Amino acid sequence: MKLETIAWEKGSVVLIDQTKLPGQLVYLRCTTAGQVWNAIRTLKVRGAPAIGAAAAFGMVLGIGKKKYSNFQTFKRRVNALYSYMSSSRPTAVNLVWALDRMKKIVSDNRSTSITRIKDCLLKEAQAIVEEDKISCRKMADHAQPLIKDNDRILTYCNTGILATVDYGTALGAVYRAQELGKTVKVYACETRPLLQGARLTCWELHRKNIDVTLICDNMAGYLMQQKKLDKIFIGADRIAANADTANKIGSYSLAVLARFHKLPFYVVAPHSTFDRKLKNGKQIPIEQRNAREVRAGWFRKPMVVQGVRIYNPAFDVIPHGLITGIVTDSGILRAPYTKKIKRLIRS
Amino acid sequence: MKLETIAWEKGSVVLIDQTKLPGQLVYLRCTTAGQVWNAIRTLKVRGAPAIGAAAAFGMVLGIGKKKYSNFQTFKRRVNALYSYMSSSRPTAVNLVWALDRMKKIVSDNRSTSITRIKDCLLKEAQAIVEEDKISCRKMADHAQPLIKDNDRILTYCNTGILATVDYGTALGAVYRAQELGKTVKVYACETRPLLQGARLTCWELHRKNIDVTLICDNMAGYLMQQKKLDKIFIGADRIAANADTANKIGSYSLAVLARFHKLPFYVVAPHSTFDRKLKNGKQIPIEQRNAREVRAGWFRKPMVVQGVRIYNPAFDVIPHGLITGIVTDSGILRAPYTKKIKRLIRS
Repeated sequence: MKLETIAWEKGSVVLIDQTKLPGQLVYLRCTTAGQVWNAIRTLKVRGAPAIGAAAAFGMVLGIGKKKYSNFQTFKRRVNALYSYMSSSRPTAVNLVWALDRMKKIVSDNRSTSITRIKDCLLKEAQAIVEEDKISCRKMADHAQPLIKDNDRILTYCNTGILATVDYGTALGAVYRAQELGKTVKVYACETRPLLQGARLTCWELHRKNIDVTLICDNMAGYLMQQKKLDKIFIGADRIAANADTANKIGSYSLAVLARFHKLPFYVVAPHSTFDRKLKNGKQIPIEQRNAREVRAGWFRKPMVVQGVRIYNPAFDVIPHGLITGIVTDSGILRAPYTKKIKRLIRS
Repeated sequence: MKLETIAWEKGSVVLIDQTKLPGQLVYLRCTTAGQVWNAIRTLKVRGAPAIGAAAAFGMVLGIGKKKYSNFQTFKRRVNALYSYMSSSRPTAVNLVWALDRMKKIVSDNRSTSITRIKDCLLKEAQAIVEEDKISCRKMADHAQPLIKDNDRILTYCNTGILATVDYGTALGAVYRAQELGKTVKVYACETRPLLQGARLTCWELHRKNIDVTLICDNMAGYLMQQKKLDKIFIGADRIAANADTANKIGSYSLAVLARFHKLPFYVVAPHSTFDRKLKNGKQIPIEQRNAREVRAGWFRKPMVVQGVRIYNPAFDVIPHGLITGIVTDSGILRAPYTKKIKRLIRS
């Protein structure tokens, strides 16, 4: 069965409810912007490229079928939806990137009818979806010179089919390697607190018959020390102009460990993940999530007594100096990054 | 209420069942060696010094009240119990250290009656318990020059009251700092897969009104990067002659992260944790535990699909070069370690 993380179907957005995996594969139908906002906020849909696409459809649903008396009223609604959808999660820039594209459609078509703008907006959201599929395939191809037969690759969180519309970023590179007949052994970090590595990455890779071994996040250094790893591939939620990269909390520790063990550390991300407005990683907003996620984890039984303070940042930032290369949909970037990123975003 | 992790009471060993914490404080009464073996194996009692004491009592229970026809029969039983109890867990050397003491009592008293040897064995097990209490207080005192007022300390797994007979190793140092009026802020890593940090360390520290914040293991690097930590204190399961130190899986990663961030990394362990027979850490046996612990974690619902391979080493080894100092019951050791360790073990 072909998975579709996110699809537009008869006037609604259909998403895989990722909070139900790996136990059940359940599709969630959203018919309002609020439902999409909630799906993003509660990680029913997650992964930087996937939430960009979801947010664009959220805007389409929010505009809806109702009549707007004039362009100004319509524009106000679009702006309100822009603010609302972009408030769902702060770190991944793809979300704002997709919403910016939607807003631009409105400005670019201000002289045509609202009905026509609505059509254009739906088409733009669908274009974001289709471009994401193409972009993932391109990144996967560009990554191939970095993957050798029998490589043992560590990956983090989920960067596969479920994190994008299809195929994936870092995991896309692994899928492509397999299609080309390379044997790849993947170690998946479980990724506390929400276990996207254990629940989603293992599920995806196992389904595709790729050799995957699950480890707890704290075992990564030991694997490196035992020389059981060749390289690290991760995704990204936002990349600043100097290549400082925000990704799931724990990515920074992996980058430091990789440097200590002299292992290559690669980031795989489409151009929509680059934020030209931010000079460096210090400016990237880091989402702080509810303590409940750590306290009760994925489960119901609390693992810590009430009253204990809990710190739950959802992301961290990898300084560019720890990144061996960034695989984008336009090719591999290597240090010094700044000019190359400027060129990439312009292109 | 005064906690007693392990106590001898009317011919049986009474242990806190640590698998029930933090939900319930339940005491478990063991009347056979098999029950103690099982309690150690399933981590109902854990922590290097605590399992040493438990194993000694396990031997007392295994010998029991029954009559032995002669010394040889008795000796065979002692040897069998030695092998059996030491098979419960392989990494922490305190277990074998305690059993060695018990065996020596038998050899040293071979010319006396079996009834008398039995008395001596119980006294020896009780002496191990009493000495552990004293040893913890000594380590805690020796550690004080390393702890300043307002220090922010990262700790790992559980090294407190529950890991010893009383007070603790690394956490003992924190308790003593508090008694001396220092304000200490502790960050506790949850310690996957079995969450001893979340379940036990947070429970202990909260109970003693020490400021504790729980983090997932993968957040430690981010804390260091944000300059929210001053130093790291951990315990140990076995320390080789050159100071290579085995401790809970994930400790090695923390040591590398500490080095990268130029933070002091301290090990706190009594002399019973040093293994003079092993030249270096490569010779320390690393326990591989059941995949179930990672798959279902502390809870029942599986977090990964069936069929996915899981790697579950319970410990890793920190090369001595990453250790700033080892706080022992005889004082602080600093590099170069080998001669100092030799002297410590001889003393």
